[in-house]
Amino acid sequence: MKVLVLLLAVISLSSAKVLQEDEVCKVLLGDDLIAEIASYESAVKEILKYVTEGEFKSKTYNELAKFVDKFGARPSGSEVLEQSIDYMIQLTHDEDIHDITTEELEVPKWTRGEEELTMLEPRVKDMALLGLGRSVSTPPEGITAEVIVVNSFAELYSLPNSDVEGKIVLYDPIFTNYGETNQYRSQGAVQAAAKGAVASLVRSITPFSINSPHTGSQSYDEKVPKIPTAAITLEDADLLRRMYSRGEKIVLSLKMFSTYETKVSRNTLIDYKGTEKPEKLVIVSGHIDSWDVGQGAMDDGGGLFISWAVPVILQRLNLKPRRTIRSIFWTAEELGLTGAYAYEEKHRNEAENINFIMESDEGTFAPLGLVVAGNTEARCIIKEVLKLFKSINASTLIEDESPGSDITVIIKKGVPGASLYNDNDKYFWFHHTEGDTMNVENEHELDLGAAFWTAAAYVIADITKDIPR
Amino acid sequence: MKVLVLLLAVISLSSAKVLQEDEVCKVLLGDDLIAEIASYESAVKEILKYVTEGEFKSKTYNELAKFVDKFGARPSGSEVLEQSIDYMIQLTHDEDIHDITTEELEVPKWTRGEEELTMLEPRVKDMALLGLGRSVSTPPEGITAEVIVVNSFAELYSLPNSDVEGKIVLYDPIFTNYGETNQYRSQGAVQAAAKGAVASLVRSITPFSINSPHTGSQSYDEKVPKIPTAAITLEDADLLRRMYSRGEKIVLSLKMFSTYETKVSRNTLIDYKGTEKPEKLVIVSGHIDSWDVGQGAMDDGGGLFISWAVPVILQRLNLKPRRTIRSIFWTAEELGLTGAYAYEEKHRNEAENINFIMESDEGTFAPLGLVVAGNTEARCIIKEVLKLFKSINASTLIEDESPGSDITVIIKKGVPGASLYNDNDKYFWFHHTEGDTMNVENEHELDLGAAFWTAAAYVIADITKDIPR
Repeated sequence: MKVLVLLLAVISLSSAKVLQEDEVCKVLLGDDLIAEIASYESAVKEILKYVTEGEFKSKTYNELAKFVDKFGARPSGSEVLEQSIDYMIQLTHDEDIHDITTEELEVPKWTRGEEELTMLEPRVKDMALLGLGRSVSTPPEGITAEVIVVNSFAELYSLPNSDVEGKIVLYDPIFTNYGETNQYRSQGAVQAAAKGAVASLVRSITPFSINSPHTGSQSYDEKVPKIPTAAITLEDADLLRRMYSRGEKIVLSLKMFSTYETKVSRNTLIDYKGTEKPEKLVIVSGHIDSWDVGQGAMDDGGGLFISWAVPVILQRLNLKPRRTIRSIFWTAEELGLTGAYAYEEKHRNEAENINFIMESDEGTFAPLGLVVAGNTEARCIIKEVLKLFKSINASTLIEDESPGSDITVIIKKGVPGASLYNDNDKYFWFHHTEGDTMNVENEHELDLGAAFWTAAAYVIADITKDIPR
Repeated sequence: MKVLVLLLAVISLSSAKVLQEDEVCKVLLGDDLIAEIASYESAVKEILKYVTEGEFKSKTYNELAKFVDKFGARPSGSEVLEQSIDYMIQLTHDEDIHDITTEELEVPKWTRGEEELTMLEPRVKDMALLGLGRSVSTPPEGITAEVIVVNSFAELYSLPNSDVEGKIVLYDPIFTNYGETNQYRSQGAVQAAAKGAVASLVRSITPFSINSPHTGSQSYDEKVPKIPTAAITLEDADLLRRMYSRGEKIVLSLKMFSTYETKVSRNTLIDYKGTEKPEKLVIVSGHIDSWDVGQGAMDDGGGLFISWAVPVILQRLNLKPRRTIRSIFWTAEELGLTGAYAYEEKHRNEAENINFIMESDEGTFAPLGLVVAGNTEARCIIKEVLKLFKSINASTLIEDESPGSDITVIIKKGVPGASLYNDNDKYFWFHHTEGDTMNVENEHELDLGAAFWTAAAYVIADITKDIPR
């Protein structure tokens, strides 16, 4: 009985909190705006129906499949990335959309060569690995050294330098969340080198594996030596951890080769012109480059194609918003948001005109809502817009200061924006692996994603009120 | 209302059926035997407690880890397999169990060499592959040929030979269950060669993949040419299927090399002698060899170790059954149940003495019961024994004429037996891949498995009544 009373108390408290937030929004927005947003119900329904049951059904999946099957991986700086950009431009022209601009920029081209990791002691075993972005090569004969295994930077720092010098450091942090665990990939080499290590390895940043290594970017610090660095599988990391815990001496031989240069690539901008405030922009986006493994279907083919679909669907349905919708295909995201930084710099003086900026770069599984950065009033407006998506369970608003990847560069300058919140529990199983292929994608979920993305952008671009800052 | 009435009717019908079966068992077994089996409750409890909470807690997992970490994969005919057999014998001696016999036999040694599969048209792409057991090599320069994709043998047969001649056949059957889908791996090369193909590929036999190829055995037919054969990943099979469906011409270059010879290996028999009927045997078993990828932790390190644990736990607890418990570590299971066939032949004249034969070779996840081959009375007895495992939800009896792998060779001769029924939904995700490692195993589930396996074997070996045939 006590438990029941307590439960009821908790429920009424949390209802009270929700009511309070809703009350604030009601005051901030006013009845007229709330009614105006609600009036988009039929437009949203029309878009949903056209994409999930009508002529556009399965088109997002099929076009994505044709695209990734044709080009495969599209690493920054590669010829194939440029060909894939040309293809997307042509695909857009084919839809009779011609307001397309490309903006050139310099991008990194890190090219993976032969990679080989062999355990020599306590027994001989080949291990799967993927070098990390920008890693330097080993000498031609490779690096043969003893391994030390640590779980954290704290554990590494606690060791005397003499324990680390000349060794290969393996970081073996158990996956908690990407932001937290990822630092051992992005900063592992620098921290290990500062302690005198000759190479560093990291347990792949994932909660699940079928002996699958996950690549990803990392950066060096000019003040410490650049050492080769790669990811190994959960299975091998656990094997080395067990051997290390038993006090066995582990010797690895690592060979990895790569080249680094810069090339010119392009951001692609497709404008679907606004009828009343054409200078005001609602941006939808995904990145067109991918890692050099897999097909880049999930990261970020899905985001690319639902963003491509926005002007296409709106034009096909003859829905013309007040503001311009700009669909951007970012280039060179994977090696440091290069395309986004170039865009921000080039368009800095027009930043006031970005009404809202959206990106999908964490999967296009079933859409659930938006992860939003913006002030209270902005969030209230987006929350009201999301109510239009109750029929597909995509009405959730998550608050986050830096949602998305590329768009954080612009959001940090004070622009409100959002990333797609979707049912992506298994995203990191496939992220940056050979397994990032069409097999991860689902036809109906991509339809829902394209419909949601299009309708949300349309409503935000069409309502009378700008998204406030 | 109609639905409710129907439901009630179905429920009462099925209750009636269950009652009927129970009634039959009651009559067949008699109250005394039922009471006798029930009287093992305290022995079962003692074993469960010792293994899951007492001194044996985590030992199965830890010993398995030490074993697979030390030896890794243990393919048939290899030196390392023989070393691993020696190790298991020593481990058993260390437990002060010395009634150990090994029986030599000739086993196949198929050794994988370099393997490489590259798509040349419509674009260049490397593909992951694993040659299938006993596959012949390609010529040194490889085989370059166009691909045809089929879903079934029926589809292959329906094609004119001229469509298949000189081509590489890709079988792309969607996984339903192992028995059904597996035929495209085991018989694919023969059927493709009969139609004039120069090589065959098969979609890996699994419902899930992170670009993981699955190897496995296959056989040739002396009447048709032997062509090279390998498994590719679900991702690449789907990619080729999509390209093929779009009418694109696909050209692959396949290089694979291997050697085949025969070697001598050993079955290992550990006897824990019965007190009253030492000549009567209850056999528990698993196979010690593995594929040449991964660690063979799941297939079949787990089965090996829970079977090793049976005499060890019983001796530690001083539980002495009436009949002898024989723990067998089969050799060379993966290339055609070679160890089991040799054992059956050698011991054919003592087959009457095998009271019951058990094997665990489909995972050692949480135990759920037994998959039993035997007549009605035999199944009634086992069902009664399984009632002792209600506390760990391992009381389910599944009827199957050929449970297990090695033991089917002996069960087919009329010997009653069972395999471990366990919570192995994800078994085929890892089966015959580099992902078959300790990461698949769970400490507590292995404890439950070892306890269940030991207690079930003990009760069957100790009850007054033989398992009838």
